[in-house]
Amino acid sequence: MTQGIANVSVGEQFEGFLLIKSAEKGVASNGKPFLTIIFRDRSGEIDAKLWEITKDDEEVFTPESVVHVQGDIRQFRGKAQLNVRQIRLATAADGIHPEDFMEKAPIPVEEMQEYMTKIIFDMRNPNIQRIIRYFIKKYEHELFTYPAATKNHHEYAGGLAHHVVSMLKLGKQLTELYPDLNPDLLYSGIILHDIGKVKELSSPMSPSYTLEGKLLGHITIMVDEVQQAANELGIEGEEVMLLQHMILSHHGKAEWGSPKPPQIREAEVLHLIDLIDAKMNMMNRALDKVKPGEFTERIYPLENRAFYKPVMD
Amino acid sequence: MTQGIANVSVGEQFEGFLLIKSAEKGVASNGKPFLTIIFRDRSGEIDAKLWEITKDDEEVFTPESVVHVQGDIRQFRGKAQLNVRQIRLATAADGIHPEDFMEKAPIPVEEMQEYMTKIIFDMRNPNIQRIIRYFIKKYEHELFTYPAATKNHHEYAGGLAHHVVSMLKLGKQLTELYPDLNPDLLYSGIILHDIGKVKELSSPMSPSYTLEGKLLGHITIMVDEVQQAANELGIEGEEVMLLQHMILSHHGKAEWGSPKPPQIREAEVLHLIDLIDAKMNMMNRALDKVKPGEFTERIYPLENRAFYKPVMD
Amino acid sequence: MTQGIANVSVGEQFEGFLLIKSAEKGVASNGKPFLTIIFRDRSGEIDAKLWEITKDDEEVFTPESVVHVQGDIRQFRGKAQLNVRQIRLATAADGIHPEDFMEKAPIPVEEMQEYMTKIIFDMRNPNIQRIIRYFIKKYEHELFTYPAATKNHHEYAGGLAHHVVSMLKLGKQLTELYPDLNPDLLYSGIILHDIGKVKELSSPMSPSYTLEGKLLGHITIMVDEVQQAANELGIEGEEVMLLQHMILSHHGKAEWGSPKPPQIREAEVLHLIDLIDAKMNMMNRALDKVKPGEFTERIYPLENRAFYKPVMD
Amino acid sequence: MTQGIANVSVGEQFEGFLLIKSAEKGVASNGKPFLTIIFRDRSGEIDAKLWEITKDDEEVFTPESVVHVQGDIRQFRGKAQLNVRQIRLATAADGIHPEDFMEKAPIPVEEMQEYMTKIIFDMRNPNIQRIIRYFIKKYEHELFTYPAATKNHHEYAGGLAHHVVSMLKLGKQLTELYPDLNPDLLYSGIILHDIGKVKELSSPMSPSYTLEGKLLGHITIMVDEVQQAANELGIEGEEVMLLQHMILSHHGKAEWGSPKPPQIREAEVLHLIDLIDAKMNMMNRALDKVKPGEFTERIYPLENRAFYKPVMD
Amino acid sequence: MTQGIANVSVGEQFEGFLLIKSAEKGVASNGKPFLTIIFRDRSGEIDAKLWEITKDDEEVFTPESVVHVQGDIRQFRGKAQLNVRQIRLATAADGIHPEDFMEKAPIPVEEMQEYMTKIIFDMRNPNIQRIIRYFIKKYEHELFTYPAATKNHHEYAGGLAHHVVSMLKLGKQLTELYPDLNPDLLYSGIILHDIGKVKELSSPMSPSYTLEGKLLGHITIMVDEVQQAANELGIEGEEVMLLQHMILSHHGKAEWGSPKPPQIREAEVLHLIDLIDAKMNMMNRALDKVKPGEFTERIYPLENRAFYKPVMD
Amino acid sequence: MTQGIANVSVGEQFEGFLLIKSAEKGVASNGKPFLTIIFRDRSGEIDAKLWEITKDDEEVFTPESVVHVQGDIRQFRGKAQLNVRQIRLATAADGIHPEDFMEKAPIPVEEMQEYMTKIIFDMRNPNIQRIIRYFIKKYEHELFTYPAATKNHHEYAGGLAHHVVSMLKLGKQLTELYPDLNPDLLYSGIILHDIGKVKELSSPMSPSYTLEGKLLGHITIMVDEVQQAANELGIEGEEVMLLQHMILSHHGKAEWGSPKPPQIREAEVLHLIDLIDAKMNMMNRALDKVKPGEFTERIYPLENRAFYKPVMD
Repeated sequence: MTQGIANVSVGEQFEGFLLIKSAEKGVASNGKPFLTIIFRDRSGEIDAKLWEITKDDEEVFTPESVVHVQGDIRQFRGKAQLNVRQIRLATAADGIHPEDFMEKAPIPVEEMQEYMTKIIFDMRNPNIQRIIRYFIKKYEHELFTYPAATKNHHEYAGGLAHHVVSMLKLGKQLTELYPDLNPDLLYSGIILHDIGKVKELSSPMSPSYTLEGKLLGHITIMVDEVQQAANELGIEGEEVMLLQHMILSHHGKAEWGSPKPPQIREAEVLHLIDLIDAKMNMMNRALDKVKPGEFTERIYPLENRAFYKPVMD
Repeated sequence: MTQGIANVSVGEQFEGFLLIKSAEKGVASNGKPFLTIIFRDRSGEIDAKLWEITKDDEEVFTPESVVHVQGDIRQFRGKAQLNVRQIRLATAADGIHPEDFMEKAPIPVEEMQEYMTKIIFDMRNPNIQRIIRYFIKKYEHELFTYPAATKNHHEYAGGLAHHVVSMLKLGKQLTELYPDLNPDLLYSGIILHDIGKVKELSSPMSPSYTLEGKLLGHITIMVDEVQQAANELGIEGEEVMLLQHMILSHHGKAEWGSPKPPQIREAEVLHLIDLIDAKMNMMNRALDKVKPGEFTERIYPLENRAFYKPVMD
Repeated sequence: MTQGIANVSVGEQFEGFLLIKSAEKGVASNGKPFLTIIFRDRSGEIDAKLWEITKDDEEVFTPESVVHVQGDIRQFRGKAQLNVRQIRLATAADGIHPEDFMEKAPIPVEEMQEYMTKIIFDMRNPNIQRIIRYFIKKYEHELFTYPAATKNHHEYAGGLAHHVVSMLKLGKQLTELYPDLNPDLLYSGIILHDIGKVKELSSPMSPSYTLEGKLLGHITIMVDEVQQAANELGIEGEEVMLLQHMILSHHGKAEWGSPKPPQIREAEVLHLIDLIDAKMNMMNRALDKVKPGEFTERIYPLENRAFYKPVMD
Repeated sequence: MTQGIANVSVGEQFEGFLLIKSAEKGVASNGKPFLTIIFRDRSGEIDAKLWEITKDDEEVFTPESVVHVQGDIRQFRGKAQLNVRQIRLATAADGIHPEDFMEKAPIPVEEMQEYMTKIIFDMRNPNIQRIIRYFIKKYEHELFTYPAATKNHHEYAGGLAHHVVSMLKLGKQLTELYPDLNPDLLYSGIILHDIGKVKELSSPMSPSYTLEGKLLGHITIMVDEVQQAANELGIEGEEVMLLQHMILSHHGKAEWGSPKPPQIREAEVLHLIDLIDAKMNMMNRALDKVKPGEFTERIYPLENRAFYKPVMD
Repeated sequence: MTQGIANVSVGEQFEGFLLIKSAEKGVASNGKPFLTIIFRDRSGEIDAKLWEITKDDEEVFTPESVVHVQGDIRQFRGKAQLNVRQIRLATAADGIHPEDFMEKAPIPVEEMQEYMTKIIFDMRNPNIQRIIRYFIKKYEHELFTYPAATKNHHEYAGGLAHHVVSMLKLGKQLTELYPDLNPDLLYSGIILHDIGKVKELSSPMSPSYTLEGKLLGHITIMVDEVQQAANELGIEGEEVMLLQHMILSHHGKAEWGSPKPPQIREAEVLHLIDLIDAKMNMMNRALDKVKPGEFTERIYPLENRAFYKPVMD
Repeated sequence: MTQGIANVSVGEQFEGFLLIKSAEKGVASNGKPFLTIIFRDRSGEIDAKLWEITKDDEEVFTPESVVHVQGDIRQFRGKAQLNVRQIRLATAADGIHPEDFMEKAPIPVEEMQEYMTKIIFDMRNPNIQRIIRYFIKKYEHELFTYPAATKNHHEYAGGLAHHVVSMLKLGKQLTELYPDLNPDLLYSGIILHDIGKVKELSSPMSPSYTLEGKLLGHITIMVDEVQQAANELGIEGEEVMLLQHMILSHHGKAEWGSPKPPQIREAEVLHLIDLIDAKMNMMNRALDKVKPGEFTERIYPLENRAFYKPVMD
């Protein structure tokens, strides 16, 4: 692949493969239809215009398809825009995979799987262990392809698993520093807390909210599923309710979407670990883009703060 | 029964049957144990002291038992207090029922049952109708004995059913005034919205919050149960999710305990009807206690307002 | 009239009568003046440009005048825009009434008048009845032509009366379900609560806020007028103050513009009915525009929620 | 008069005249009725008990009457309490005036009257001047006897006038520093802004809220009265509305009871001056009671802050 | 100087000297670079485009330099825009000073200096006097050239000193009306409260926030400096801490940036005076731009209110 | 020492040594003076009364002195109360140390010192290392004796150091999980963030807020000291400002007392670590007091939540 679409400059030519993230039809002032497309590759995104399109074009150049594009980079209202001169669908012959155009978790899937397997293997409470294994099996594929969110943090392929693994590592340290914490409860809460997202979001690649996601939300979806899994596995006892409570309360307070606040120690810690890992992910990725002595862009979910990158070492 | 314990005056004698609402042991300054009891009958409550108790007394005079009491009414820190001189457990021979000491819904149970049966019979959507019938059957007894809350509104035997029936009547009027409303959705939402309270609260007579009630809450409990009922009945389709959404959102906003706000018309109306019926119940009961030209006590859940009872007609 | 200006498509021609809602002068990059106009008819609105205008045009094409227009529909920044080729003022010969270009209440004025007359006739309290008759007479014309608001809900000709009549119907049902409510107080509160809008807003057709509306507001204006009416009619007694209180408190709390919260039962109910009818109006009109299975646009005054239209029946 | 009831110590005897601020009947544990009285004189207040009272006592020892009392000072729950041994109503022969038992404004009434007369005399706008004169005449007596509030600030006889005069002085300085301010508007706003309190409060000596005060409030009452005064005096024009706006908005924002925020410069300044004078009055009176190097009690309406009195000079 | 760049009309020619406030490079759709400039003079600002620039132009036409410009006024997206035809840097021969292009305090610097000198001379507390003299000397130049803020109020050359002097005058009046106030504390608080801005802001002419300003803020910077000054001058005692407290608390509450609220009388008054002077400055400048009978633009820091300019006199 | 004063039961006798935490004089209804004392030992606290005291008693039995007490345990208003029969000051012969009556950090001081020494030794940035060493030396004694707060968390002897050491351990784990974090910045922020408490609080044993603590607060005090230390040590550069920023921002947001929010990655992490360690300390200590299956008392600074201790293992 080339240098990446996010790195081309105004005035340059571009030729290469890109993924269509979205495509919307408009009608120009001359009455001719055109497409407003957002292309992406692993480096980022660019806006584009495809002028005077045919009915065919409209049906072919749709979201999640990969295309080969030639064009030049213009400036439009202060932003780079790709003016498409030639475009065609990628073919099998091109040997191109849509996944290659998505940002990916920085850790290989296998490594993440292994880490989680180990954690689950070490669990001492058999009820919790069985429930976790049930879900790891059920969502085996989704867990390692879905993002953890549509934007803000871990919003890349495998982001959900990456978020879970980082939190497990953090959780492990905390159970060592604060030995009163029950590791099984904490780890199982971490693994399950966001899995509901695989039903809340429509797809791993260009996710939008499903109807179920909008009307019920990932928290309620997952609390439900834990109950059904327990029924199916014939498990009864406090563990089931405690797991449901941890999922239910992990946003920390009612205003943030948890109808019950954490009321066991491990639930409070789950909430705090979630916060830390999400914040670190956002800060790190924003700071990676700036030089020492500069401020990042404002980060909306971090109370719209900009962060300074020190010069000192 | 007599005039009612809430209506005796300081200086008077009292003799009659009372229900023990709560009983707590203390040790007096002379080192002797005593019980601080709250007695109740249908008219209300009174504080009492039972001095120099035996081990036996402690075990016998416990919450939810009915006793025959003789004593006089004193004043203690500005409140009437019953000074017990004689006390014994009621016996079968007394022909006394604990329920007779609870405030009751002002409508007979049969009338409420009949009204609900009629509403359910008229439902056109078979999926909704089957789910509602499932729950009416499952919680047949609890629905007509539990209060709708531990305090504030409809906090009396059968209060839950009374609240539901009043809301159904209101809902019926609204579907006539606003014919776009789907009656089946609205009625089923009304019937199910608070049933989770029969698991959130410990008992109909002197309810406290159960562990499940504290960690999950009646909303989550019921959303879960609807899913399980649908599974059991083999029902699929939008209706199940819409019913869950209505239960989930009926508190109106996140701060009030609904992780998702109402997103269908009937859910919004359910929330509003719930509000009106709860507020009317609180205002009416407070205003019943004052004379024209007076203000009620401040009502905490109504933003701590006092209400004026007009003199004009 | 034609299909309605809100229903034309980009690329089509338009010819017909339209009302000028607003017109603002600009100067083009070639130095020539032009007008940016918003036209409307009963179906909705469209933006338009009238290029290279004369002094005369500027004086003639002003808000609230009706014109005959020919032009074609273009797209500008994603929105349809009418490019005017010919335009002239409507003449008497055209037989056109400005009112025909406004959205109207869905119930005929006569029916609304009749309903209100009946309600007032049935009042038992003569003082209240006289005050209400005084205002019905005084604002006879405005009540049935003004909108209830400049936007959000009932923002159409006769919207004020439509809002009042819907609320009266709701109020009637509530007095039946909760017989402690005083119907005279409730109905009179409903009728008067928003009449101050006829002085707060500048005109029924393209209303803006008057100076009095901005500095005092419709609530204060109307509380004042009730006092003056009572003085004029020689009425004294609690009723006057209670009516003033209901108007004053109908927004429910200080943050929403009511310096005193409702402190009588009927004032609280007035506030709740107002809420319900406004919300139903907003939801119904938004849901009318979408198909089953879709969400409406976000509705700002309903906490920016979008509403889902179920597919099930 | 003696040293003042606020200055006696536990263990001392007291003999002298006191005003009854409030008196409430109770029944003792021996079944005998008694009165819980709050006595006051200019130095402050004391709680008292009058045991084993007769029907007569109950009718005679009522709020706002002056009595001659003998008794000793005890301590009850950490506070001084006057244990009454002898008590009788003051008679004409005692030459006692109830006003002598109230705290008073630190400036003589005549001086305040004179200052206000001068300010009004200098007004240039005849409409404003006539309206102000109308109210000064109408409430001549109340203005100089009522407090400005029931507690917190200027809560003494003549406190209302004292507050107005302080604010007028402050206003005068501000019109000199910021010459764009219109003195007539500002001064008239200052004089009228709180006069509604004479109808909101029941009496100058032991004020409680009237029904009108609770349901409408001093702001609405006064906005109404300005309209009626203008009608009576045949005055029309912007001045009337501006005066109403200043009264309406003087609490600054909706949450604080002003349905409209200040929208003219003089209204904003009126709000700020009101704030300063109320705060200075509260701080000064609290700091007067402590020594250098100490903190005052927490002052609730000043965000519950305690203020430090510096040692340095 | 000419009529001022803020007063030219679309279609007119402009020739004269202007200050470059900001200049940003862009690339046109023809691939050629251009500058987007904001010019300013004492009357206000105008946007401008300088097309097809050279490398030289880019380096020469930078912020804070003065240029001689010829061009015509166009309209672009509803705003006037200066289309530059000729431009050159001002030379020594032109006799132009950048300061002449900034708005200035309405009082001459000498007069402000004199007023402050007098106030300081009259101080009775030698410790306070020495600290104030230390800072007046240290920031002699900055105090009379910096604005008091980057926008909103006193955002002009010398605005900081102007704000201080107005507040001192107000403070003087208050110490006369409320003689309990300690003038030395109040005046010294006024003089120091905002001086930290000379380190928080980058320059008097086109100020932006410095790194220190962003990470520490003017309040913390100044509290630090007072401590260091006291150390340097060998001053100990309560005065130092009280001065620090006044600076620290002058924003009034935590949400507004003061980690401690005012806890001495003079600190509270400092906060209130600051509020009044800032608000008067904003209101006066907005009202100066409109005619009687009109409303000002909405003023964001005044809760986004628009103010009405009365017609009456 | 005995079983501990917190563990005696009503009706028992007590004899042993106790520390006087506070002592306040009152006058009984018989006119005799008495002392209300709070005693404490390492197990907790108890209220007590010492009747009919002499002048001597008053002067001798003062806070922070240790006494030998004999008495019996009564119940007063639902709480245990020690009725003192004999009391005398502890003498040298008793071999008693006031520190023995305080709760202590669960880790020995030497271990904490060693851990911190190691962390500081490993720092790579010499400026930061020198500043930290300066403060460790300056507050060597206070750091290991002061509590971290007067109540809520780590409110015991050495609590400040214990809090710092726990946070350092947490910080160490985080720098490993998130290698972008600068360890020197993070560790130095942790060590300094609360040291200002040694000046904010009056003493390690029965701390109250100092005047400086009230008017400036520990954050401002410490930001000042860092500046002075840097001056003294001749250190300049970004490090000083970054350390000040970390201290300043460690409460996270303005409402919580930080005038600037965290704007570097390490400051955000410092805030989060502080939160976690404080919360863990509060939860652990509350849960230690209850049995599995029970809820703790409500913990006010944890949003008044009660926490459940699971039964499962």
